[in-house]
Amino acid sequence: MPAYHLWYWPTIQGRGEFIRLPLEAAGIRYRDRAREDGVEALLADMDWRQGRAPFAPPYLALDGLVVAQVANILAYLAQMHDLAPTTLADRLWLQQVQLTVADLVAEVHNVHHPVAAGEYYEDQKAEAARAAAQFRAERIPKFLAYFDVAAAANPRSPWLVDERWTYADCSLFQLVEGLRYMFPRRMAAIEGDYPHLLAVHDAVAALPGIKAYRASDRRLPFNQEGIFRHYPELDAA
Amino acid sequence: MPAYHLWYWPTIQGRGEFIRLPLEAAGIRYRDRAREDGVEALLADMDWRQGRAPFAPPYLALDGLVVAQVANILAYLAQMHDLAPTTLADRLWLQQVQLTVADLVAEVHNVHHPVAAGEYYEDQKAEAARAAAQFRAERIPKFLAYFDVAAAANPRSPWLVDERWTYADCSLFQLVEGLRYMFPRRMAAIEGDYPHLLAVHDAVAALPGIKAYRASDRRLPFNQEGIFRHYPELDAA
Repeated sequence: MPAYHLWYWPTIQGRGEFIRLPLEAAGIRYRDRAREDGVEALLADMDWRQGRAPFAPPYLALDGLVVAQVANILAYLAQMHDLAPTTLADRLWLQQVQLTVADLVAEVHNVHHPVAAGEYYEDQKAEAARAAAQFRAERIPKFLAYFDVAAAANPRSPWLVDERWTYADCSLFQLVEGLRYMFPRRMAAIEGDYPHLLAVHDAVAALPGIKAYRASDRRLPFNQEGIFRHYPELDAA
Repeated sequence: MPAYHLWYWPTIQGRGEFIRLPLEAAGIRYRDRAREDGVEALLADMDWRQGRAPFAPPYLALDGLVVAQVANILAYLAQMHDLAPTTLADRLWLQQVQLTVADLVAEVHNVHHPVAAGEYYEDQKAEAARAAAQFRAERIPKFLAYFDVAAAANPRSPWLVDERWTYADCSLFQLVEGLRYMFPRRMAAIEGDYPHLLAVHDAVAALPGIKAYRASDRRLPFNQEGIFRHYPELDAA
């Protein structure tokens, strides 16, 4: 099978990381096109596409098929590569978890860009401080408690479904990593309350494909351009 | 087939409306449980569910299966009721459009609640004014242009795919309705630039099931508690 072409911003983990992780965990071949050819290549590729085009990266291209939106890409990969459970109820459940991760990711971005996605953080610091306070106090515990109960719902393994990993497990791993980077003091204070979620995180971290990926230069570090950004003034225990 | 149980806040269109519309258009039987039994019944039902539970309404229940997250519910209904196209590429495309609608809906909510989802609009009016200015100037045209190109990609009919309506067409209808309610001056100024999107809107409005629904008391009016809210101070041409 030829390699997928993954198109995403080349300098950040961002939403693209939710695609990279299961590709790496499953050993599926892909080319991270904008990392190979630069951001100009991504902009040119976006500009060229019309009609059934992506609204934004990430998107995955193969043989004329273009799939965009993270949860949609993941459901597609799961179906094509036997990475999903076989029952309808299980597949709906994983997609439900993934879409709830997506909701949290959008809220995370909103913390540092509450009033103007197109302007700099520095121009909305006061609003971001207010957004971060509520996010730390109310939203993080609400989401983490939810994912902890979700993880605990499967007594057979640390995974969300059955006895093997899925894309949604990878996404929970990335969520914990990102929140630890963005809110180290808050996470240190509360993450122990969510042992089932941390068990998913640790099980994903122990997958051979994920270990190899994180040891490689393919795994970009978190930075101040992505979704999860560490602004110390937005963190507190 | 027994009626679905739809659980959603009983006094708003909100995200639940994206489920109600295709149910009504297709004539699928459902009970809008919190409208029948009150918001306390919804809260009690949420409270009772553990494990594979919804994070938030809306969710759909039938025979022990519970499906949450709007796009996930819609894909499920399309599959179960032959409301989706048959090719994988078409199904991925519709879900991609739906998830982009979901992104816009989240941004719309953020306009009137930019810094604290749990607090009142009145306590974040200054921030909302700033968020609305950018949303009107940049985000509305960007999203509407995207959906217009998406609608134009199918030359065979006003619909997004083939020659029949799907849930994503219904969602584009609701988006236009909601934006007209929330930003009447802005929409009057620019909506004519998106004729293919408006053609989808008008085609959905003309479906017999939708006409009957809108003429009934099942269709709640827009109000100041839902996603789309009309605060005149946030609108401008």
